[in-house]
Amino acid sequence: MQHVGNGDSVANEGQRSEEGVGMAGNFGLKGCRKIQGPQLRGLIDAKDVFLFDCDGVLWHGEAAISGASAVVNSLVTRGKRVLFVTNNCTRPRENYVSKFNQLGFADVVREQIFSSSYCSALYLRDVVRVQGQVFVIGCDGMRTELREAGVQFVEENDPPDATIYDCALTPDVKAVLVGHDDKLTFLKLAKASCYLRDPDCLFLTTDNDPWHPLRNGRILPGSGCLTAALEVATGRKATVVGKPSRFMFECISSQFTGIDPAQCLMVGDRLETDMLFGTNCGLDTMLTLTGISQMEEAQEYRDSEHSTNQSFVPDYVVDTIADFLPAIEELN
Amino acid sequence: MQHVGNGDSVANEGQRSEEGVGMAGNFGLKGCRKIQGPQLRGLIDAKDVFLFDCDGVLWHGEAAISGASAVVNSLVTRGKRVLFVTNNCTRPRENYVSKFNQLGFADVVREQIFSSSYCSALYLRDVVRVQGQVFVIGCDGMRTELREAGVQFVEENDPPDATIYDCALTPDVKAVLVGHDDKLTFLKLAKASCYLRDPDCLFLTTDNDPWHPLRNGRILPGSGCLTAALEVATGRKATVVGKPSRFMFECISSQFTGIDPAQCLMVGDRLETDMLFGTNCGLDTMLTLTGISQMEEAQEYRDSEHSTNQSFVPDYVVDTIADFLPAIEELN
Repeated sequence: MQHVGNGDSVANEGQRSEEGVGMAGNFGLKGCRKIQGPQLRGLIDAKDVFLFDCDGVLWHGEAAISGASAVVNSLVTRGKRVLFVTNNCTRPRENYVSKFNQLGFADVVREQIFSSSYCSALYLRDVVRVQGQVFVIGCDGMRTELREAGVQFVEENDPPDATIYDCALTPDVKAVLVGHDDKLTFLKLAKASCYLRDPDCLFLTTDNDPWHPLRNGRILPGSGCLTAALEVATGRKATVVGKPSRFMFECISSQFTGIDPAQCLMVGDRLETDMLFGTNCGLDTMLTLTGISQMEEAQEYRDSEHSTNQSFVPDYVVDTIADFLPAIEELN
Repeated sequence: MQHVGNGDSVANEGQRSEEGVGMAGNFGLKGCRKIQGPQLRGLIDAKDVFLFDCDGVLWHGEAAISGASAVVNSLVTRGKRVLFVTNNCTRPRENYVSKFNQLGFADVVREQIFSSSYCSALYLRDVVRVQGQVFVIGCDGMRTELREAGVQFVEENDPPDATIYDCALTPDVKAVLVGHDDKLTFLKLAKASCYLRDPDCLFLTTDNDPWHPLRNGRILPGSGCLTAALEVATGRKATVVGKPSRFMFECISSQFTGIDPAQCLMVGDRLETDMLFGTNCGLDTMLTLTGISQMEEAQEYRDSEHSTNQSFVPDYVVDTIADFLPAIEELN
């Protein structure tokens, strides 16, 4: 798997802010600094742009995390720019706008939302400028964003008894895009494998998330599973569009002028996507403990002998985004 | 992925025969020795047991490779023991017997056939002695072998609109067995992922083959793809029952007395399964060029600086198994 983003639009790569409340490195081991009260207030004061992951940070499924909407609303009221960066490819942005509003996040507009589906459509249209059709292993959210971006994709219409031995293959498929697909079939996997035999056919994945938690201890296999299956079948590596790839930040930088990585805080719940994304883009990072990754895992990365593991270490840690509330209220 | 087989029943591990026509090592670089005529006759004379992979060695799909049946029949007539070791899990052994007979291989009986389905059933019954049901991502050939071995497995009866959010999970699943499944659905992957959250639930795969060639340049994703998907979803590694695991040879050794690895020749078409299997079991190995791997790939492994790559290098190479014919005819 390789991550896209050439960094042309990302200033100060690898440089981290030393302003505001100062880096955790000033306090001994770098990172994993539990932050609240006046220090959190100082951090919020120092940052202009807040990038929030959604699942596990702002909500769990259809239930908002307590205080999350008040935090986002207050940040906006205080003149902060709030953006949402999610690897969840299942919803088109319009649908996210509705969800935000239903859950009490006021006045969120689609321009604030950077989903892996939307960014995949932009990548296909603007970066690789795909000439031909896209074969999608994915969901309606992906197809909606492709359609809105004017990217052509194959409409599936195989008869129910079609097999890879006798099905039709579309001649002008120039990219395979993999994401969450709860209607996955073996035939889809097989067709994608056949298209990818052509080295000129691009191989993209919305994200590389391995799994997602459900209620009752169940899990949902993530896009990373289906991508891994195709990587084995084809001997190729997919290009990841979503976090931790820098491309999402390049999309943001291309749509809002004057975004300075040093003025951004990336808040997320998964070390291997959200924190690495922040590190890759030169942003300060914050882990919130309401989602997948826990403090112990972050500390294991921090204490690891492998220097590459430092990229997963959050600068800051909060128990929940609700910890922002008292800090924001004391802002001038 | 890890390979099973503790080697208790495999004598002389790592020792290779120096009898008969001598090892390729006597002729400079070890392995990849193209062999025919008197040298091939000497090799055949020196070996008692011939293990043949099937697809790509004896047949392509439903068409026998020219001369293959005559070779097998002649070896048997000359008193050689011929066994078939295949990672193709789609057929039960009875079905293989029919196929052999239809393609002109005389008098093949099921006791000669060691398929990854059959060996998986034996592994579950006799080695791990599974207590509970097996969840199968696989095909009828696997279910038939499990049933014949008396291994209980979950009968799927989800309504068509079931999802991982609301479907029933069987409480006593103690193993997930993955193989070829042309009826794969996302729900099956998700259910398997949920079962494997229990660390006491075993994770097995019939084989780890990445893909199989079809006609017209198409490919069929192999069991290794579906296994990779579940490995990503669960963070676990599957135990591989089929080649290159030694377990298939242990099955053979347990069912035929006096099998001496030094007296065996493993003939196959895939370096990463057949040749590695032979190496792992201490057998001389022969690559036939009628299937997947080509001479150049074998030579790349041979010339590689990584010593582990030597395990993929065949001792001998023939263009086709039909090369055996003139050599056998000159045997006493």
